[in-house]
Parts: sequence; structure tokens; C-alpha cells
Amino acid sequence: MATPKQLHLTAFMRPVSLHTGAWRYPGSYPDANFNLAHLKHFIQRLEAAKFDAFFMADHLAVLNMPLEALQRSHTVTSFEPFTLLSALSVVTTKIGLAATASTTYDEPYHIARRFASLDHLSNGRAAWNVVTTGNPESARNFGLDEHLEHSERYKRAREFHSVVTGLWDSFADDAFVRDPESGVYFDPQKLHVLDHHGAALHVRGPLNIARPVQGWPVIIQAGQSEPGRQLAAETAEAVFCSPRDLDAGKALYADIKARATAAGRHPDHLKILPAAFVVVGDSVEDARAKRRQLDSLVYYDSAIASLSIALGTDAAAFDPDAPLPVAEIPETNASKTGREGVLRLAREENLTVRQLAQRYGGYSGLAFVGTPESIADEMEVWLREDAADGFTVVFPFLPQGLDAVVDHLVPELQRRGIFREDYEGTTLREHLGLPRPANRFFS
Amino acid sequence: MATPKQLHLTAFMRPVSLHTGAWRYPGSYPDANFNLAHLKHFIQRLEAAKFDAFFMADHLAVLNMPLEALQRSHTVTSFEPFTLLSALSVVTTKIGLAATASTTYDEPYHIARRFASLDHLSNGRAAWNVVTTGNPESARNFGLDEHLEHSERYKRAREFHSVVTGLWDSFADDAFVRDPESGVYFDPQKLHVLDHHGAALHVRGPLNIARPVQGWPVIIQAGQSEPGRQLAAETAEAVFCSPRDLDAGKALYADIKARATAAGRHPDHLKILPAAFVVVGDSVEDARAKRRQLDSLVYYDSAIASLSIALGTDAAAFDPDAPLPVAEIPETNASKTGREGVLRLAREENLTVRQLAQRYGGYSGLAFVGTPESIADEMEVWLREDAADGFTVVFPFLPQGLDAVVDHLVPELQRRGIFREDYEGTTLREHLGLPRPANRFFS
Repeated sequence: MATPKQLHLTAFMRPVSLHTGAWRYPGSYPDANFNLAHLKHFIQRLEAAKFDAFFMADHLAVLNMPLEALQRSHTVTSFEPFTLLSALSVVTTKIGLAATASTTYDEPYHIARRFASLDHLSNGRAAWNVVTTGNPESARNFGLDEHLEHSERYKRAREFHSVVTGLWDSFADDAFVRDPESGVYFDPQKLHVLDHHGAALHVRGPLNIARPVQGWPVIIQAGQSEPGRQLAAETAEAVFCSPRDLDAGKALYADIKARATAAGRHPDHLKILPAAFVVVGDSVEDARAKRRQLDSLVYYDSAIASLSIALGTDAAAFDPDAPLPVAEIPETNASKTGREGVLRLAREENLTVRQLAQRYGGYSGLAFVGTPESIADEMEVWLREDAADGFTVVFPFLPQGLDAVVDHLVPELQRRGIFREDYEGTTLREHLGLPRPANRFFS
Repeated sequence: MATPKQLHLTAFMRPVSLHTGAWRYPGSYPDANFNLAHLKHFIQRLEAAKFDAFFMADHLAVLNMPLEALQRSHTVTSFEPFTLLSALSVVTTKIGLAATASTTYDEPYHIARRFASLDHLSNGRAAWNVVTTGNPESARNFGLDEHLEHSERYKRAREFHSVVTGLWDSFADDAFVRDPESGVYFDPQKLHVLDHHGAALHVRGPLNIARPVQGWPVIIQAGQSEPGRQLAAETAEAVFCSPRDLDAGKALYADIKARATAAGRHPDHLKILPAAFVVVGDSVEDARAKRRQLDSLVYYDSAIASLSIALGTDAAAFDPDAPLPVAEIPETNASKTGREGVLRLAREENLTVRQLAQRYGGYSGLAFVGTPESIADEMEVWLREDAADGFTVVFPFLPQGLDAVVDHLVPELQRRGIFREDYEGTTLREHLGLPRPANRFFS
């Protein structure tokens, strides 16, 4: 029997969790934003469970929200991802290390250099999550009043990717001969000066770093907009996306793989890894109760604002402890998809207005909430029906939410033969089944 | 008896050494540029010897030299300092970690964030070497044809320092209450939005990092030009300078301390740490022989070019294996100080043209070459005569040059009671005897 299609798992991390109520969950580590010991523990558990990568989310600003809500958020501050992942590279040996870096507010020489350095430090485990930075607050931290316009950001991102990968190719893999006898440290025939002059960027090169262990660190992308999908199809090797359900996942998977093929790439060289909020319980009801408890810790005033946006009407006027008064919600003001999602959720889980609001203020994307078996069943469906090549796992709370995945879900996936029992290789490219890129200047 | 004035020691590092011939020296590690194990060994030895800090030199370009010379240089490529020092922070507990970052080719929000993050990761051991980047090759890696003019660079640097330290003060030290009961994560009264609008920079803030452990990472400066000295006097807490001899050291020391006092600072809060190339031998002649062997590994064509610049005449025309023909050197073309330095050196050590050239192509700054006792004698004179508060030690070759300092020179300095037997505190500020800065927005 052939080996079934294998699942890839990356952990999408914030030190305390992405969920805004998580720091108040019993047993959590509210100080993890600046406590390396906790992060070391998390990544070592994920490596023991053979996760493909540890992916650190990032922002280039304190998030733009009213101070009344901001003061309740644990996501305002944390270690900067490069310094953190470099530190974590020393206490791990196999797991991939993915960091976000912005093509809008940074320089290609800096980005190329840092990812190449992390790739050398970690012996081939670095990945770059290419973002164009949608948060307009960031602009004002970098000397700009106005955020760069969306399509301009994507044009710059495409050129930026080309420059960064070109800089990574500055030296041939075998450039450094280091022969003490002749005194020749590197072969000058194996040095390429990029000398890039494009629409947005002028970068001479060469990079002052040897070619990365992986050739290029793995390229990750998250965009789901039209230019975001196209950029991913042309450049990404892993796509971290957020389809709301299986049908949306299948459509997105087919679209991005088709675009990659059209761009002349092998579709297997681009892995689609939807973000999934995973809550494991002893029973489905136990998992749902955990999630309800977590949601109940979300600050209500912010939560009701999120729900109001999703519904397109002021939900603060409703009785928070009664079911959603569907008849009172005007049809025209909200986006149809958003509104239908809310109504479906209210129906399915029989949630009050407060509970619905706190769900929206916590985490409202794709979620697998159940037993190890039920979650593995869902993951298998996504894998088999070509909606995913794996998942970008979001933990509801730490450390327990991570422990439950590592201790119960991963063994169930391994038992089914769809997730590795051990790493097959040593680099992130090897974990993800991605080829090592040829050097564009030296073959 | 009062404790004598204490010496501070920082190690000024490149992975293979700063000396261009070092990678060919017997027993050296030519691959150390991308071999973390070697760097881990070096820093752990320096920490065991109670060095104040490990300082990683840096460049933002492949150095501008003819390819014929470039191919012989081990200084072309190496780990990027932030990723490297973050990794090394995990394998050390006390030694300071100093990185260079440019105010000309980077953004204050990025710089503030990375140093704050390194300071949190290392529990208060980060230092920022503020450079304006004099290498014109760098400009072309960052979209500019022309290098920013010298005085413009220093004006920007002064404003940049003010913005970065202002961002570090975004949160009061006790801002983060993290009270799960009330749901308040930080006290909003203890958050300051910088909203800086200056001549060169516009940065809103706040920084998305808690105030650094040290309040501010330690500020280091190297400039010796007029604006460089003034910037150091106003902002630096450690000055890494290059006086050529004791008299020049005393003059520079007095000048910078006086400028600091005039700027309203306590002169003890700015440590003067001249760079010193330290070669330890069993005898003075043994140490000199080691240095001659090292110099002999410098590529002659580059070396003779360096000597020609120092003399202001084409030295390639002289017989390389004869003494310097002083009478044949025109008086007018060279800078007087540089020319006199060469002539003194030629006289003192009785060097041939080749040896002189290779000295200039290797390391031509202040050097202490001798026995542990003779070097300790020299260091004591600098300390006692107020030419230095310590030294920025440059190792001739690694690992042996470092081992000799750690195993023989440091114990001699300890025996004399001028260097610590153990760390007194845990942060770099404590090692250097520097106060923790008050938060300018919260007292």
C-alpha cells in the first residue's frame, strides 16, 4: 500500500497565545511575552512532537484599539521574532523557525542578511513569512503619514522577493575554498554582484553572508486577496491561509495550486496550510466547554464591537444574556457572508449575544474543537479532499492547549499514518518536502 | 587601602579575528564565520575570565577592495550580529552582548525593538554600538548612490538616539500589572506615545516592547572626529576609540570626559575603552615573533597598498626585503602623523619594507605585545594616568590569542587587584558601573 498523503503541522505562536482572553485562563503564563523559559519549553515540546515549524506572529506597532481595550490585551508587547528565534535555534535541532518580516517597512539587504544568518545558525531551519503589513498604525512608526496603497505594497513585495533571493545567491554554494596555503579564501568566479535597479528598489550587493544552508530560507505567505494569491502562487512555498470552512478551503487550495501551475511551478512545491484553532477535550462537549470558558475571559466591550462589525449593526443594544434577536438585525448593512456566519454559529452552538460577541473578540476563524479522534477525522477530510496539505495550528491557551495537541492529537495522527513519527531530514525544506532552489547565477 | 581604579575589558570580535592574515595562522578556525560552535567556545571562555562584554564588529557591505585582495579576506562574510548575539545569549549568563547598528541605514523603531528584545532575552546584557556607517559601499546596498554627508549623518544620529531611547521609555518599568481577576494587563497611565517629529525622523510609537531590563541598553560609540566626540560626550556610556599611543590616549580621554561634564553628565558615567591589539608571549621576543608570523600571512599586494597610503608614496617601488629607504620618501605627500608613525615603527622593530607593509595590512593601531607582566604594566599605566578606563581587546588570532589573554593576562591583572575575580552584578550596566537611566516620561 502506498504511503498516504502526509500532513504538515506548523505552530502559529504568540507567547501567551493569539486568543485575547488566553492570559486570564487558569494555569496560563501571562508573563510569557518576555519570559524565554516558557518559549523554550513550548518549542521543545513541539519539536518532540515532530512539528514542521514554529512560526512567530508579529506586528510593527502597538495595535490600534481604544486604550480601554488595549490595556486588557496581552498581545501589545513581546520579544521581537528574530532575536527570539535565534535564541530558540540554540535549544532545538530540527524544528523549523519561521519569522515575519515586512517588505513595506524594511530593507531587502537587512532582510536577506538576517534570514540567511538565522538559516546558518540553525543549520537550515529558517523561513520568511513575507508580509506587506496591512496595519496602518505601522506607517506612522516608520516616518509615513499614509500607509502605502495595497497594490503598490504588492508590487514592491514582488520586487523585494526577487532582490532578497538574488542576494541569497550572491555566492555559489562552493565559493568558500579557504585554502591557507595559497591564501585564497573564496573563489572570485563564484561571487555575483546583483546590481538590481527596479521600480521600487536599488540594491547593489553582494550579500555579506555565504549562501544559506537551504539555498533560500523557505518562503511563507498569508495573503488571500487577489494580488496576495498571485504573489503566493509565484513565490510562496507554504501558504498560511484562513478559509472559513471545508468548501472555502477546497476552492482556495484549487485556486492557488492552479495559479502556481500556471506560473510554471510544480504544485507540490507550494504547501497549503490553513490556520486552525485547535481545542482538544476528553469529549466534544468538554472541548466546547473549555472554549466557552476561554471566550468568557474576553473583554466584553471590545467583544461586542467585533460582533457589531460582523453583523453590521450595533449589537450593544441587544440583551447580552439572551439569544441573538435575528429578526431585529437589518439585512442590508452587513456583508452577507459575515452575517450568515454569525447566524449559523448562533444556531449551531445555541450561544447568547455575550457568548457570540466573545467568540468574535477571541478567535472566529476555522476551528477544530473536539476529541483527538474527531479532530483527526476532520484533518483527514481536509487532507484527502485537497483542502489542505497540513495546518497552521493556533493554540487556544498555553501551555495546556499545546500539551493536549502534543500528547493526544499528534499520537492519533501518527497512529493513522498521516503524520511523521520522526523527522526524515534536518532542514525545514526536507520536513516540508520542498526542493532546494538552484542558485540563479551558478549552476 | 582604597580599591584601586578598576579595569574594564571588552572583546572586539570578528569570528576569525580582525587581522586579515589570521585565518591562515596555524591552528585557527577559518570557517568560524558560520560556525556557531567556535563562537560559543570563545564567548564562554571570555565569560569565565569575567570580561565585561563581547562586542561583535559589523559591516553593511562586502568591503570595497579589488577582487584580487577581496578573495583573500576572511572578513567578507559572517553571521549578522543580532541573530548571533541572540543565540549566544542563551549559552551565557553574565557577559555583556554588544552589537553594531547603523543610524544611517536603519529605522529607529526596528533598532529600539531589537536591542530591547536582546536586553530582555539576556536579562540586561545588551549594548548598542551606535555607528553612522562610513563605508560608502553600504549606501548602494540601501538604494542610495551617494553616501549621506558626514555632518548630516551625525545630526541624524543624534536625533536617532533620542528617538530610540524615547521608544525604550514607552512603558513605565511597572506598567505591566497582568491581573487576571480585573482583566487589566497593563496600566494605561503608564504608557507614553512618543509622537516624535524632528528634522530627519517622524516616529509615533509606542514601542511594542516592555521597558528593557537595563532601562536602556548600554550605548557605545566609536567616533573620533569632532562631531563623533561630541555625540559620544552627549550620549555614549562607553567609548571605543583608537589613540595611537599613551599621549594621544590621555588627550582623547581628557577631551571626551570634559565634553561629557560640559554636557551636564558625570564623567564616570562614560567609560573610555581604547582598542588594543594584544599579543601575549612567553617573552617579549616570543610575542613579537608571533606577531611577525601573523603579519607574514597578510597578502602582500594589499599590504603594500596600505603602506603606500600611510607614506603617501608608491612603496611597491622599494625592495621588499630591505629596510625602508627613508631618504627616498618625499616629505610633502603624506600626512605628517601617519608618516612619522611608519618611520618610528620601522626604526623600533627594525622591519623590512615587506614586514612594514604587512603590519599596515594587518593591524596598525595601538598594540600591547609582550609577556602577561609587561602588558599588565602597560595597561596599569594607561589606567593610572587617565588614558583609559579599560580596553577594547582585539585578538591577533583565535583561539590561541584569546586563550593566552584568558589564561595568562587576566590572572595577572587580577593578582594586581585591577580586574574583577567575579562579576559583581548581573547586567552589563552593573559590570561597567553605569547607572540605570530613569524613564524620561515616568519617574
